[in-house]
Amino acid sequence: MLECISEHACFGGVQGFYRHASSAIGLPMRFSVYQPPQAKAGPVPVLFYLAGLTCTEETFMIKAGAQRFAAQHGIMLVAPDTSARDTGIAGVADSWDFGNGAGFYLDAMQQPWSAHFRMESYIVHELRALILRDFPARPAHIGIFGHSMGGHGALVLALRHPDKFQSVSAFAPIAAPSQCPWGQKAFGLYLGPDSARWQQYDASALMAARTTPYPQGILIDQGLGDQFLQAQLLPHIFEAACAAANQPLTLRRHPGYDHGYYFISTFMEDHLAFHSRNLQR
Amino acid sequence: MLECISEHACFGGVQGFYRHASSAIGLPMRFSVYQPPQAKAGPVPVLFYLAGLTCTEETFMIKAGAQRFAAQHGIMLVAPDTSARDTGIAGVADSWDFGNGAGFYLDAMQQPWSAHFRMESYIVHELRALILRDFPARPAHIGIFGHSMGGHGALVLALRHPDKFQSVSAFAPIAAPSQCPWGQKAFGLYLGPDSARWQQYDASALMAARTTPYPQGILIDQGLGDQFLQAQLLPHIFEAACAAANQPLTLRRHPGYDHGYYFISTFMEDHLAFHSRNLQR
Repeated sequence: MLECISEHACFGGVQGFYRHASSAIGLPMRFSVYQPPQAKAGPVPVLFYLAGLTCTEETFMIKAGAQRFAAQHGIMLVAPDTSARDTGIAGVADSWDFGNGAGFYLDAMQQPWSAHFRMESYIVHELRALILRDFPARPAHIGIFGHSMGGHGALVLALRHPDKFQSVSAFAPIAAPSQCPWGQKAFGLYLGPDSARWQQYDASALMAARTTPYPQGILIDQGLGDQFLQAQLLPHIFEAACAAANQPLTLRRHPGYDHGYYFISTFMEDHLAFHSRNLQR
Repeated sequence: MLECISEHACFGGVQGFYRHASSAIGLPMRFSVYQPPQAKAGPVPVLFYLAGLTCTEETFMIKAGAQRFAAQHGIMLVAPDTSARDTGIAGVADSWDFGNGAGFYLDAMQQPWSAHFRMESYIVHELRALILRDFPARPAHIGIFGHSMGGHGALVLALRHPDKFQSVSAFAPIAAPSQCPWGQKAFGLYLGPDSARWQQYDASALMAARTTPYPQGILIDQGLGDQFLQAQLLPHIFEAACAAANQPLTLRRHPGYDHGYYFISTFMEDHLAFHSRNLQR
């Protein structure tokens, strides 16, 4: 049962916020959808956006300025929340980089997190199916992108499920989470100490085990004034993995830009155009 | 003394947030400035944006998507906060439509508000002078626009100070505040019971007493799905006043659009183009 929280006219389409009982998460979840004007005439391509640490299903729709270009290209935008909520797990709200708002787009394997922190199953199976069922969406024309933790999520979900996503890009992704403090903390708690599990949710490790998974290319934008670039993001590791895997990658490094939505909004137009080229075929 | 809170690269320019000790307000005030890339080469036109009830100096810069078009046209954007803050006045935080976040862009005449609630003097004199002194701004190329309470503010400050502002537009303005509950509450408390004072801060009353104050025209966008249209905004009264004053007005009524920033962002491009035409001359 899909509950509409609010809907707003926006660039000739509809910006909506919704809630539903998620079976994958075992709790209510919220998500947002922007339907472009073209969706009134029939199914359109879909682009999932995964947000970063501390964000919600609202962040992208409020701050990124993507609806203008989604309306131009006729692409539906879908943004889930960034974790399970109201789990009642002890300590779930103690950190800004773990637990609430920090689901890392994986299925947790360790107690107590494994009961509800199952964002991979939620997005790839439940939410994707819900969108295809309840919104005018084209099933074989689905892309995914995201920012920071959500850039990690987009790359990882695309590489783990290339049958589900036909296009992928990222802004300042956590590109090698096994090798940075944010990822090590989250993976250790969600996945446990087994490093083989970590590799299955590490975009650079996944890419190293594949050959040209996205022949149409991957687009990544990274600000060189990003305060997290050196310690947490490590895009050069993903870049090397792409080179070894014969994966075309456009990694653009932008002097002066930081980690926030003023950076993201600046290059949003290019990402929508990139996904439009990949998804309109 | 201008204190920089933060600066961010954005569309080739700089999005900044600043704080200073305001003499007009008698307390510290915050404001935001977007400097387009053209400002690196020399002074550029300036466009003030006045936000609505409950907003701050951040709201417009985060939600409106204006920087893209400010960068295209080479216009600087300036957004003040919406009231004095931390005044310590009893009851100042009791209402969402009066006091904190609800300064109504006037100089209060009644105690205890008159000590600090002086947004007209702050914007028209102090902040305008500060921008011209500390940022690369062209003095005779300054426009003003705003939303809701800030649309009221833009129209009123432009009509009261046509020597200071060369262009004016609004989104869903409180267009006849003397005749609506928001305006009556605010004017009664800030200005007192004298209706002559109210007329001096009522855009429709001010327009009725003038002849073609803005011959280049005024642009107003209004959503017809706006929940405040009938009781609070009353654009038809301003429309009639413009007709009587021989003031060219483009009042666009948009079916389905509501009062929020999804509406504002949809038509932001047109407002920047409008002000650019008026200010680049």
